Amino acid sequence: MIIKPGKLLSQIDSPADLKKLPKEQLVQVCDELRQFIIDNVSVYGGHFGASLGVVELTVALHYILETPEDQLVWDVGHQAYGHKILTGRKEAFHTNRIYGGISGFPKRKESEYDTFGVGHSSTSISAALGMAYASKYKGDKKKQHVAVIGDGSMTGGMAFEAMNHAGVLDTNLLIILNDNCMAIDPNVGALKDYLTDITTSRTYNKVKDDVWHILGKFSKFGSSAQEILSKVEGAVKSAVLKQSNLFESLNLRYFGPVDGHDVNHLAEVLADLKNIPGPKILHCVTMKGKGYGPAENGDQTTWHAPGLFDKVTGEIYKKTVTSPQPPKYQDVFGHTLVELAKADPRIMGITPAMPSGSSLNIMMAEMPDRAIDVGIAEQHAVTFSAGLATQGLKPFCNIYSTFMQRAYDQVIHDVCLQNLPVVFCLDRAGFAGADGPTHHGAYDIPFFRCIPNMVVSAPMDEEELRNLMFTASKFEGPFSIRYPRGQGVMPDWKRPMREIPIGQGRIIREGEDVAILTIGHIGNYATEATDALAKEGFNPAHYDMRFVKPLDESLLHEIFSKFKKVVTVEDGAVMGGFGTAVLEWMMDHGYSAQVKRLGIPDAVIEHGEQLQLHHECGFDPEGIANAVKELAEVKVGSFH
Amino acid sequence: MIIKPGKLLSQIDSPADLKKLPKEQLVQVCDELRQFIIDNVSVYGGHFGASLGVVELTVALHYILETPEDQLVWDVGHQAYGHKILTGRKEAFHTNRIYGGISGFPKRKESEYDTFGVGHSSTSISAALGMAYASKYKGDKKKQHVAVIGDGSMTGGMAFEAMNHAGVLDTNLLIILNDNCMAIDPNVGALKDYLTDITTSRTYNKVKDDVWHILGKFSKFGSSAQEILSKVEGAVKSAVLKQSNLFESLNLRYFGPVDGHDVNHLAEVLADLKNIPGPKILHCVTMKGKGYGPAENGDQTTWHAPGLFDKVTGEIYKKTVTSPQPPKYQDVFGHTLVELAKADPRIMGITPAMPSGSSLNIMMAEMPDRAIDVGIAEQHAVTFSAGLATQGLKPFCNIYSTFMQRAYDQVIHDVCLQNLPVVFCLDRAGFAGADGPTHHGAYDIPFFRCIPNMVVSAPMDEEELRNLMFTASKFEGPFSIRYPRGQGVMPDWKRPMREIPIGQGRIIREGEDVAILTIGHIGNYATEATDALAKEGFNPAHYDMRFVKPLDESLLHEIFSKFKKVVTVEDGAVMGGFGTAVLEWMMDHGYSAQVKRLGIPDAVIEHGEQLQLHHECGFDPEGIANAVKELAEVKVGSFH
Repeated sequence: MIIKPGKLLSQIDSPADLKKLPKEQLVQVCDELRQFIIDNVSVYGGHFGASLGVVELTVALHYILETPEDQLVWDVGHQAYGHKILTGRKEAFHTNRIYGGISGFPKRKESEYDTFGVGHSSTSISAALGMAYASKYKGDKKKQHVAVIGDGSMTGGMAFEAMNHAGVLDTNLLIILNDNCMAIDPNVGALKDYLTDITTSRTYNKVKDDVWHILGKFSKFGSSAQEILSKVEGAVKSAVLKQSNLFESLNLRYFGPVDGHDVNHLAEVLADLKNIPGPKILHCVTMKGKGYGPAENGDQTTWHAPGLFDKVTGEIYKKTVTSPQPPKYQDVFGHTLVELAKADPRIMGITPAMPSGSSLNIMMAEMPDRAIDVGIAEQHAVTFSAGLATQGLKPFCNIYSTFMQRAYDQVIHDVCLQNLPVVFCLDRAGFAGADGPTHHGAYDIPFFRCIPNMVVSAPMDEEELRNLMFTASKFEGPFSIRYPRGQGVMPDWKRPMREIPIGQGRIIREGEDVAILTIGHIGNYATEATDALAKEGFNPAHYDMRFVKPLDESLLHEIFSKFKKVVTVEDGAVMGGFGTAVLEWMMDHGYSAQVKRLGIPDAVIEHGEQLQLHHECGFDPEGIANAVKELAEVKVGSFH
Repeated sequence: MIIKPGKLLSQIDSPADLKKLPKEQLVQVCDELRQFIIDNVSVYGGHFGASLGVVELTVALHYILETPEDQLVWDVGHQAYGHKILTGRKEAFHTNRIYGGISGFPKRKESEYDTFGVGHSSTSISAALGMAYASKYKGDKKKQHVAVIGDGSMTGGMAFEAMNHAGVLDTNLLIILNDNCMAIDPNVGALKDYLTDITTSRTYNKVKDDVWHILGKFSKFGSSAQEILSKVEGAVKSAVLKQSNLFESLNLRYFGPVDGHDVNHLAEVLADLKNIPGPKILHCVTMKGKGYGPAENGDQTTWHAPGLFDKVTGEIYKKTVTSPQPPKYQDVFGHTLVELAKADPRIMGITPAMPSGSSLNIMMAEMPDRAIDVGIAEQHAVTFSAGLATQGLKPFCNIYSTFMQRAYDQVIHDVCLQNLPVVFCLDRAGFAGADGPTHHGAYDIPFFRCIPNMVVSAPMDEEELRNLMFTASKFEGPFSIRYPRGQGVMPDWKRPMREIPIGQGRIIREGEDVAILTIGHIGNYATEATDALAKEGFNPAHYDMRFVKPLDESLLHEIFSKFKKVVTVEDGAVMGGFGTAVLEWMMDHGYSAQVKRLGIPDAVIEHGEQLQLHHECGFDPEGIANAVKELAEVKVGSFH
């Protein structure tokens, strides 16, 4: 299905085309751009609300800036659909987030207009400041450097680090604060309240206006009073206008708040700001889902990435299911944590701004004082959890594998060195799918495995996830459980929980000649593979190891005593991962076998559906079967 | 040498003893505590300036709080010597930072008064907030939770994340901002200027006073004017007092600034603050090195940790050297970067608050616009570097291995996925020595090796460091170079630089039977070991691999074709490290050999001198020699 752009948009293949239009037509361009996004996302899927919210800002920026010479950095980047459409990717837009198609995020390889690859939040100010400093160093005073960052991303600590630095560097940096009170879920924290205060005039503007208004009344006094008044006004001005603002405290000139949906006013303001040197911030108030009724009036979290929908009625399509479906691992986590927490008052749930994505929102609804969204702040989430743990509580800190990278030091320094009982639930471990390389949870096994005291585990199915969570709740040290995005394999998953001895694996299939060792959900692929192989006359064994650390040593003794050919499978980096752990153990214990390690290779793997990517990397059921067959056919002892 | 505490201090074995004293004696306690620190550090070494700066604060806190029931968290913790001395570790204090002795940082295992292990900056607010929330959850309204954090640590992003969260949690949290304008080096950034502004009344207090003063003059007007005035005053008050403060913007009640060296006033203020519920911040102005003339008047960076000194004259002892000494790797880095930068205008130097520690201060002095201290902000340092790299510059980002953990996501997401040419110089890789486990650079090989596009290298000596830096400056992708704290081995180190082909190792010693493969400076231990072994009739070969990634494949083919017994040595975690990389390669290429991996085991290794720790872990020269001998004596083919 080809989506046709509107009359003006169809003429725009680059910002140069946009610039040819008179200012009067910008509103229509915005309408057409918005409609084009609605038409596409309703049919092809993708992120939605964020891009609708910045349509006017996007048009105004490309109308006023000299992109790509001027540098425009979109924080996170799921709001950059309009940017992509205006910068040469209109025709390709229906391939957005599809295997082989364009990325859902700005990406340097894709376009010179994408100045910086994004995906994780709060990076834009640092990147734009680096660019701005480079221009300053080169003596280029004209070049503009703009970071567009949401109020949610602004809570991430590195945004603050960057502002603290920007305030003393004197570069051509413009931060545009896209204030819509939302991350994916509603934004959290004191900063949000502060921004709302400014915006709604509850204090900042109100005070400003009151003072001006009241001072105005003094004009009836004589001239000496006038003189005094002007001094008061000066003092108050510098107090209220300069010092009273958080951003001005950091030496960033603050402008706003302005209406982020008035494209002509935005264009005027941006044109003015271009001529003001030094670091500055424009506070722009927008609405996620702007211009699409069902999103404006509905639940903004739902409309962040709604899936396919009827653009006329706003009805979001549900998959038709004829038989009971396995649940998402996320929901198993969410419901199981509530179940555990009801039985154990020590248990708390922590999420850095992913309550709906992780399904911690289930607990937040049932036990609001025990399930806490700390905002986009992974580092704080981990150390806050460590603080809870010192007081005898048992925090379950749920962080996507890819975002766990951002709190790595806190896991080592604040949790593991102190051996504190924090449970890390690593959601979206392995390939994330359509979000692509910035979101793949590829590295957590190597980076967690090397930390002392850390238990590293992964469930093969829903029941195992429940058992591991139960086990973790009883354990007095750091414990991690990784599981993938999406559905498991057990429609009937609500089974009684039992404790698993730490480090105990299990046998899934007895066999001969070749042993398959798997970790996590990907073990189900191995089951498919062994079923298929059995029909071809092969008879491999299959073990679900459950734990990467500690490994099940007695099971490994059994395996390596019996097998000289081993295949390991993991949905994670093979370099230093689970297969490598098996290899290390084998060598340390004097065994010798041929070990073929399947998993994510040492390369940047692009976006696509999970199964497509597993296939590409050779560890889908077919890939596993092929590896077993190849190994089975090699003569034992054919080592050099 | 036994250091005798003063009369009052000698009676204090715990805060309970301190509390018995009348308030009038607190000044004397402070004097004696300060003197005890001076007496000890001048003779036994350790951190100095920071602890002297908080003597009064430490005494006041333990006098007023009910520690250990009340929770006191020291950020970073090198300022906690007074705290240690007052809480039962006076007698043990001479063992501070010595192998087997007490830790230089607060440590949970060491004392119940050490509520949270620290070492890396900016964690205290998150940890204390977690503790405070736990108390709230348990219904304990009396318990106090205090984070003492420096203005330097305040620039670390996670401190901001924590304040943003604290502002909405309504817990019994007191943040004490210990404002001395310093990190180890002078503090950097807009926040520092802001705090100075507040403190010196340049704007905040000045404006406040001006307004009050001028408004006072209006009192001569009639009663209706009075009425208006009172309204103006109300409006201005809420504007200036409430909104005008950065911390109040985040909903933290702000108190101060107060003189951090007036112990009686501090005690009064703290007693008052105990009764004010909710999150609050006390701004305390202190001076590093307070009370010791040479430190007050000298260079505060030098007096952060001066080494041994004559406490009377303030003369810092230098080691007597009779022959030319090898330089510190740090200085080789510092001078070489200047040399490279002079020849290549693209090169920039970046440090997150470690200019003197890393020796980037050499470049900062010579080329101030090309060497940048971004403050305690590792995350920003990396993404800022990535921003520079997009504009064709060549940033050398110097971060201690242990602090690199804090910017792990930025290395993956902002540098490596985009394949940007940022050079990471990982200082203090391997055991850090007296700073202990929080500072050991143990994990960087495993956590860097698994990232696509990343080159992982380590020099065996000063010349190699120069060559690797030269090579990195020519390379168009992410490149990391790890090297240890301290001296190299080449007094005559200023040699011409040459490019090393990426991934090329070298042979140090031809031999037979056993091959030793080393990475980095630790290769010199292997040289010592092979020399000793040769005298005993052994003849091992020794290869300096130089690169962990990519590995020298042709050299490895040569090695594994010839040797069936291999020892790998690294000053880093063996789990997933260099030895493991060799093991993976061997298996992937169908070789079979016995590989013994030496390095840091999977455990928390405490503080001590580097050689002591290497010995403990079995990879000092003796340990290497023993491993070779053991392996040499095993019959080949004795695998299971």
